[in-house]
Amino acid sequence: MITIKGRLGYSYSLKKTANLFSIENNILLEIAKKQSKRRFFILIDKQVHRIYGEKIRNYFYKHEIKIKIYVMEGGDHSKNQQIYLDVFKELCLFDPLRKDEPLLAIGGGVITDLGGFVASTYRRGIPHIKIPTTLMGYVDASVGIKTGINFGPYKNRMGSFTIPSGIILDKAFLRTLDQRNIISGIGEIIKLAIILDPILFELLENGSKTLIENKFQNELGEVILDRSIQKMVDELSGNLYETILKRKVDFGHTFSLMLESASNYEMMHGEAVALDILYSCCISYLRGLLKERDLERIVALYKNLNIPTWSEYLSSKHLWTSVNERIMHRNGRQLIPIPVGIGRCKFINDLCLKEIQPAIDILKEYSLL
Amino acid sequence: MITIKGRLGYSYSLKKTANLFSIENNILLEIAKKQSKRRFFILIDKQVHRIYGEKIRNYFYKHEIKIKIYVMEGGDHSKNQQIYLDVFKELCLFDPLRKDEPLLAIGGGVITDLGGFVASTYRRGIPHIKIPTTLMGYVDASVGIKTGINFGPYKNRMGSFTIPSGIILDKAFLRTLDQRNIISGIGEIIKLAIILDPILFELLENGSKTLIENKFQNELGEVILDRSIQKMVDELSGNLYETILKRKVDFGHTFSLMLESASNYEMMHGEAVALDILYSCCISYLRGLLKERDLERIVALYKNLNIPTWSEYLSSKHLWTSVNERIMHRNGRQLIPIPVGIGRCKFINDLCLKEIQPAIDILKEYSLL
Repeated sequence: MITIKGRLGYSYSLKKTANLFSIENNILLEIAKKQSKRRFFILIDKQVHRIYGEKIRNYFYKHEIKIKIYVMEGGDHSKNQQIYLDVFKELCLFDPLRKDEPLLAIGGGVITDLGGFVASTYRRGIPHIKIPTTLMGYVDASVGIKTGINFGPYKNRMGSFTIPSGIILDKAFLRTLDQRNIISGIGEIIKLAIILDPILFELLENGSKTLIENKFQNELGEVILDRSIQKMVDELSGNLYETILKRKVDFGHTFSLMLESASNYEMMHGEAVALDILYSCCISYLRGLLKERDLERIVALYKNLNIPTWSEYLSSKHLWTSVNERIMHRNGRQLIPIPVGIGRCKFINDLCLKEIQPAIDILKEYSLL
Repeated sequence: MITIKGRLGYSYSLKKTANLFSIENNILLEIAKKQSKRRFFILIDKQVHRIYGEKIRNYFYKHEIKIKIYVMEGGDHSKNQQIYLDVFKELCLFDPLRKDEPLLAIGGGVITDLGGFVASTYRRGIPHIKIPTTLMGYVDASVGIKTGINFGPYKNRMGSFTIPSGIILDKAFLRTLDQRNIISGIGEIIKLAIILDPILFELLENGSKTLIENKFQNELGEVILDRSIQKMVDELSGNLYETILKRKVDFGHTFSLMLESASNYEMMHGEAVALDILYSCCISYLRGLLKERDLERIVALYKNLNIPTWSEYLSSKHLWTSVNERIMHRNGRQLIPIPVGIGRCKFINDLCLKEIQPAIDILKEYSLL
């Protein structure tokens, strides 16, 4: 069990388990402090529901807990105000007890972000429990306290910081992910490796294609998952509410928002993050801060893992617009994390428009190698 | 200056001032920690804008602060998701700095509640400053940390707890209120008097009609305003996030939500609260907990202050539905505060359907006196 403590004395836990919905597994009920007559509102990803729906219904039936299941599509297309309002309306009709009947969000980052936001705004906040089923959710989206939705073209513009009642990690869910979802999630792991943790980077290099084939079910996969989450927790602790805007974990999140939005969310979040990372590496390389052999090592890892290294949306216009949007988000400063070696980073505030295109050119060159 | 401290070390201040928008008044700029190039998004009530709009524009112009003004109608009809989303969209287009460019909400409870909710969900929270201009806002809505909107028929169902950057109290705004607005606001003052403060009750009795005529601009008016706010602050402190659901300030807020909603928000919040108070007194009287002479004193105060004592919406069905809704809000218990004398209350959990109609009958009898 990993516990996250916030600056203000808040704390919440991430709990690892196996066979979450086996009848004898009580972890979920313990977190929800089960009493009699309890009811749960469950927001669940459509794919996950297709595979696990019957098992989940059976689990709650056996434990004599009434449930209402709301099935939604995963992916950023669903992370919008229409679905937020629709889930909210269904929650009004279900009408849970304010403190004792939590909302469960079972799915990827979109479902846990949206579910958390619904819960955080229902009667000014009811408890919610996050159960990530994608790699992106497992190592990134579910770990923090961010909730929210996209607002039209504005990625994650509407949301809240809300402490969940708990986060339950069962890596068996990753087994049924397709390759694209696995690769997308790896984007966030690479992020942590490059800015924080050279050992994590080596583990990824060693694992390479086997990680994708085994969908992180092997021992190395588990080591990488645990290490990633621990690094993420270390970074978030003490700055849960982003009082400090200089955040290493913003690496990969300067240019990616506009890429996703420009692609009309055809690009997955992790794919955009991976491109942002590589692009930031090119900026650092052009500034002479990242050695060529480090850049090559990073590109090689991408290629080994089949992570896309290029997109038609990598244009000066989109990238520069994204920087300017991030300046508002970071309260007037660029605060762009860029790597200065594998496992180390610095923040820059002086990125110029004239650096944007040359870095694109370098990225294109490497992507064609 | 009154400071509210929360359980978790949070604190925020209510600051009294006069002539808020005189050029030489710096209180607003101090709270917003003015720097150069600062911009403010201002959400303002239509009536307030009509009277003070030019003065406000002039104030910010002289202080070289760019503003964007969003004018909206007050009243619960406007406290809905359409207006919330529209204000949010305009805020996206304005795009304030995340920490340094606050949203100002200038108006009654609807404007400060809705404005606070927009601010609390924009980039997971930007600062906001509340400037109440109605009596309801002044003594009640602006004092706490509740934000939110109605969701269809569900009063205040969507919202958050969010600490404001500050609350600025300038009682001169009350001067231009109509009589109905003043009377509505008095509902919340009577609430505090009956459950907490016999001296406040006497002050209201002494003031009587002069309070309404002078719109609280005289010395007695100021004493009553200060005392009400201090009582409210005392009650909220230590339980800002409603961790404890046994709240004396919920007096007047058990039956009133359904009355407002049933009237399609034709009834003002304070009017509904006043009816709820009187109805709760009748329940207490029928249980032998409130003496007849106290009930008579309360009814006499209502009549002297021209507060409505009856409504066609006072039906068994509406009142009992409201109790059942509140049970979900209070996590499975009724927790209904009822007075046991003027200045004292207790909580009941055993209100029965069969008490509902007799209490209505008593209320009707007294209202016809």
